[in-house]
Order: sequence, then structure tokens, then C-alpha cells
Amino acid sequence: MTDHDTTVAELRKRMAAFVQERDWEQFHDPKNLAASIAIEAAELMEHFQWVPSERSGAVRDDPVALGEVAEELADVFAYALSFANALDIDVTGALFAKLEKNAAKYPADSYYGRYE
Amino acid sequence: MTDHDTTVAELRKRMAAFVQERDWEQFHDPKNLAASIAIEAAELMEHFQWVPSERSGAVRDDPVALGEVAEELADVFAYALSFANALDIDVTGALFAKLEKNAAKYPADSYYGRYE
Amino acid sequence: MTDHDTTVAELRKRMAAFVQERDWEQFHDPKNLAASIAIEAAELMEHFQWVPSERSGAVRDDPVALGEVAEELADVFAYALSFANALDIDVTGALFAKLEKNAAKYPADSYYGRYE
Amino acid sequence: MTDHDTTVAELRKRMAAFVQERDWEQFHDPKNLAASIAIEAAELMEHFQWVPSERSGAVRDDPVALGEVAEELADVFAYALSFANALDIDVTGALFAKLEKNAAKYPADSYYGRYE
Repeated sequence: MTDHDTTVAELRKRMAAFVQERDWEQFHDPKNLAASIAIEAAELMEHFQWVPSERSGAVRDDPVALGEVAEELADVFAYALSFANALDIDVTGALFAKLEKNAAKYPADSYYGRYE
Repeated sequence: MTDHDTTVAELRKRMAAFVQERDWEQFHDPKNLAASIAIEAAELMEHFQWVPSERSGAVRDDPVALGEVAEELADVFAYALSFANALDIDVTGALFAKLEKNAAKYPADSYYGRYE
Repeated sequence: MTDHDTTVAELRKRMAAFVQERDWEQFHDPKNLAASIAIEAAELMEHFQWVPSERSGAVRDDPVALGEVAEELADVFAYALSFANALDIDVTGALFAKLEKNAAKYPADSYYGRYE
Repeated sequence: MTDHDTTVAELRKRMAAFVQERDWEQFHDPKNLAASIAIEAAELMEHFQWVPSERSGAVRDDPVALGEVAEELADVFAYALSFANALDIDVTGALFAKLEKNAAKYPADSYYGRYE
């Protein structure tokens, strides 16, 4: 299964099953899950801690490092999906709503090539 | 569109379009995106900063707070999906591989109801 | 040397010497150091990831865990002091100014026992 | 008062007084404080979110931005000192012990100008 044939709901269901099989819902409250996302994001950052931004894309050409980075990214998604599960938030709806809001805040023509 | 009828690839494509329309790929290197995920995760945490874990689920019954939390979660997903785009990482593949690894590390029977 | 007989300037000087002896100032720019503080803060959080807030003080009675936690806290201070060094920020001045600002924002009588 | 005439113990005492005057010790458990350090570290990072590492030092020449950055750094110190207070950790002792450990791990001659 790949991103092309997998719905967000399927990813969420898979996460929920993993958590339920271990009776871990009791630990998966929003406070703990938000902290867990931050912890995994920090582990992802650590891979680029001393690398200049413009050279950080070089990880693409290093299969071992790329595999580690993919694993950290998977952890971010695991907890972010669990967070959505814990509060029944539709990720697709929330993301599309946020992008619409951001599109109004950052019109493509006036923010072309600049972020402020 | 909801999580039930949207593939991960469609979410990624939507994010990529948003970034391309603003010529923002130049800022979206892995180092900056990893930091951005951490920044948004921290904003999510802030909603629960002084709330005890076991009461953090109460956000479910407060529509205004839940809306704000959903928006922060959307930001986490936005940057996590952009990170996957920047390095062509298949999120579904990475997540399923990580869950398989974790299933071996934390067998359901010996970790039932405990995390260590 | 303890917190009672050590000035903040002495801590900073010690950090600066450690960095200079390794010619690491080149990596210690504000962006990298801010990320480094966040990374160490996340490692500190990890010790309490699944522990309810009200039980997190129990680490006090576990000498091994307390030692690990003290080490993570030291890392937070190491990078925060290096950040101050990198930009010549007087920590004492900045902290006292911020506390004065916060004292006006959160008057002790109206915020007694509550944070919002 | 500046970093030159202020001991770490005096900073800690000042933080403790601020917290006690508001009866906030009840919220200042290690789990909440670790998350608070991470939240403030993320706000510090936000100032450099899209700035390349090597240009992030330019904040030095922008008094307004430097003032904001100093304020975020003060917040990091505020919570890090409160964390030390909550668990009676001697910051100076912990930092010097960690630097000694790191000096053994990263000998100055073999790590001169490199971090790995």
C-alpha cells in the first residue's frame, strides 16, 4: 500500500488498531499526544541540527540517513493521526479549511517568492 | 472531502500546489520544515500547557477550543506532508514499516496496558 | 561551585570556552542554537511523556532518573547560555525585564491560584 | 543587575518568588515545566523559521527583533530555572558535570572544527 491507494481514514484505522491492541488509549490523551508529536518532531530536527538549511536536502542522496529520517517522520504521523483519533478530528477537513484561510492571508500574487 | 474519500497522495498534492503557487519550495528544505513541524506541535501543546493529562480530553466538549486545536493539528499535517513532498517519502509505506517494527518491539500481550 | 557562588557570567564564560576550544562558534548561530534548545527540551519532556502531570514530581525520589533529568536540563542551559553568548544578550536583564512585564500582565492578586 | 553581579541562585530565588506570589507551584510540576520550556524554545525558533542559518546572526543589527528574541530567551530561562526549582537541581553542578562528560566525548583536538 502506498500514499496513492490509501485513504487518510485507513491510516487512522491502522493506528487505532495498534493502540487498542495494547490498551494504550488510556495514555493517548490530547496533552500526552501533543507532547509526543513535539518529541518526534525534535528527533526529526536533530538530523539537521548543524546542517545549513540549503544543504539539508542532501539527505536525499544518503539512503541510510533518508531511511532514518523517514522513520522519524513516520513517528510524527503516528502521533498526529492518534491525536486526530483521540478527538475525532477530520484531518482532511481541517487541512483544507486551514489552506483556504492561509490562501486568503497569503494571496499567491503578493506573496510570490516571499513569506512576509 | 473527508478522511474517508481522500488518499494521502491527494493531501500531498494539495499541499504541493499551495507551496508552488507561492514559489515557496525555496524555503521548504528539510531543516526548515522539521523546525516548522516542531513549532506547530508546540502551538498544539500550548492548548494543554497547564491542564492535567486526564482532563485534557475535555476540549472535545468546547467547540471553540476544539476548532483552534483542529487548526493547529492541520498546521502539523501541512508541514509533515510538505516534508514528505520535499524528500519524496511515501508516508503510508514509512508508517506501516514503523508500526511493524514497533509491533515487534512492543508485543501486544506483554505490553498490554503498559508502555515500559 | 554551586548556584550560590556562581554568577551567570561565569556560566556563560565556561560555555564559551568549551565552544571556542572546539572551534564550534561557526555552528552556533542563533537558528541552530534555538533548534538545539528545542531538541534538548524535547528530551527532557520525554522523561514525562506518559506520566500524568501530578505524578511527574515522583522523579525526585528516583536518583537514577533524577540524574538523567538533571543532565537533560544541563543541556537546555548549555544551549540557552550559548544563545545568549551568540547575540550578547544579558540573561539577567532580559529575565528581570520579562518578569516585570509579566507582573503587570498577571497581577498577583487577580491571578492568585489561576493562570487565566 | 547584570549577568556579572548576579548568581544563578539569585535568578532562581527571583523566579520562585514570582511563582509563589501567584500560588502557581501547583501548576509547576516537572511535566508541565518541561513542556513549557519546549513551547518557549519553539517561539524562539519561530524568529528564524525561514532564515538560513548563516544569516540568522543578522538579528543582532535589528534592535526591535533582538528585543523580541531576548524576551523569548528570557521565557526559556524562566521555565528552565523553575524546573530546577521544582526538583532542587543545582544548575551549575549539573552543567559543569555535563561539560566534563562532553569534554571526554568530544576531545578538543579530534573535534576541532567538526561535530561528528
